[in-house]
Amino acid sequence: MTQTRQEFEARLRQIGAERYHDKHPFHALLHGGGCTPDQVRAWVINRYYYQHSIPMKDAAFMSRVEDAALRRKWRSRIEDHDGTETNEGGIRRWLRLAEAVGLDPDYVASTKGVLPATRFAVDAYVRFVRDRTLLEAVAASLTELFAPKIHEDRIAGLLKNYEFADDSSLSYFVNRLKEAPKDVAFGLDWVLDHADTVEKQDAAANALIFKTDVLWSQLDALHAAYVEPGRIPPGAWQPGTGLADAEAA
Amino acid sequence: MTQTRQEFEARLRQIGAERYHDKHPFHALLHGGGCTPDQVRAWVINRYYYQHSIPMKDAAFMSRVEDAALRRKWRSRIEDHDGTETNEGGIRRWLRLAEAVGLDPDYVASTKGVLPATRFAVDAYVRFVRDRTLLEAVAASLTELFAPKIHEDRIAGLLKNYEFADDSSLSYFVNRLKEAPKDVAFGLDWVLDHADTVEKQDAAANALIFKTDVLWSQLDALHAAYVEPGRIPPGAWQPGTGLADAEAA
Repeated sequence: MTQTRQEFEARLRQIGAERYHDKHPFHALLHGGGCTPDQVRAWVINRYYYQHSIPMKDAAFMSRVEDAALRRKWRSRIEDHDGTETNEGGIRRWLRLAEAVGLDPDYVASTKGVLPATRFAVDAYVRFVRDRTLLEAVAASLTELFAPKIHEDRIAGLLKNYEFADDSSLSYFVNRLKEAPKDVAFGLDWVLDHADTVEKQDAAANALIFKTDVLWSQLDALHAAYVEPGRIPPGAWQPGTGLADAEAA
Repeated sequence: MTQTRQEFEARLRQIGAERYHDKHPFHALLHGGGCTPDQVRAWVINRYYYQHSIPMKDAAFMSRVEDAALRRKWRSRIEDHDGTETNEGGIRRWLRLAEAVGLDPDYVASTKGVLPATRFAVDAYVRFVRDRTLLEAVAASLTELFAPKIHEDRIAGLLKNYEFADDSSLSYFVNRLKEAPKDVAFGLDWVLDHADTVEKQDAAANALIFKTDVLWSQLDALHAAYVEPGRIPPGAWQPGTGLADAEAA
């Protein structure tokens, strides 16, 4: 039976409660100050691939939207990442974090050294948005419902535990706290409005589950490569490489 | 042998000189005042489908661009069509033209009644940009090199020959005169920079030829349906329908 708007929203929120990557042990390690500098770097390198792909994902979405008003609404997501005349954008902010942890931002931006599993997961997300219904594409974006808390924890945890953390290096997260809520309020409403049959509610819920898998599997790969057992796959970033000049010297 | 930058630019311009749709007899009819009100309406209805698809085409392009700087540059094309806080955008301007020629803008925006051949040609363009190399996608956009002249001719011809033509109804074309040159200057440079082998130059030239085919075939279909022989295919717009209330009354 089709769930009410309230029931269905609760179902979506429950997916986050059970599956969002704030529960992954890597995040506990990262936010608690337990990461070595190289483990932080590995996270920054791999997570960059996700950031760099998000505007492509959003453009893929817009390329399928016939309604100019919906495209206009969605466009601000690309602006938030790629930047505008008055906003350097999330991608550059992430590269400032890369610099702050001692990495060469050009190396990070090259996406060389990204774990293949990260690539597969992120590319799967871009393809999902390109191929599935608009409802599933919007539903997949709703992990942002759960992001403010992880960003708050991260800002507090990194500031407390790591030398590199300051207003400038963490500006990506501070900005996301501002940007994500407007996006997700729109996305949630849109999904609740459009998921008006059992089939559509199931599809939307499954899309959100898929997206939690995309996020979780990136941390699994990161953890396996750089924490435990610490087996770095062929071609992936090796500690001691990709450093900024000052660090390498 | 790879052509020099100058030779290759001349080759691209020659494609426009030979194949751009300013040479199509429908445009002579339209700009010369020879169209009936219904033929103008048929043009407005069908050309809308092209306008409405262009931001989707540009988003499809951006969804494949890894470089945030190139995406930022390209984004203004979507803004020009979909609008911003200070610019109503080309799609709304086109709907004002629709209203001015007596059509119900909601009917036009529904894209019902568009000729199947228009749909096939325009959808082929969106798919081309989604599937081909970035070089081919940018090269296909270079029909804009040839657009200012057709827009000038059109503005002059419509103002001279049709009651409905005024600053408001023609604002789409006036704005394109302003917008297109900045886009095409960037696009042309990009193509000249990147088409650095014989194979790439051939691919870029063929992409531009493909795009001239997309434009030309739309006018062929329009001419056949509404001018000569005037055989409107099943399901396509019938004169006397889709009119604004005042006209229908």
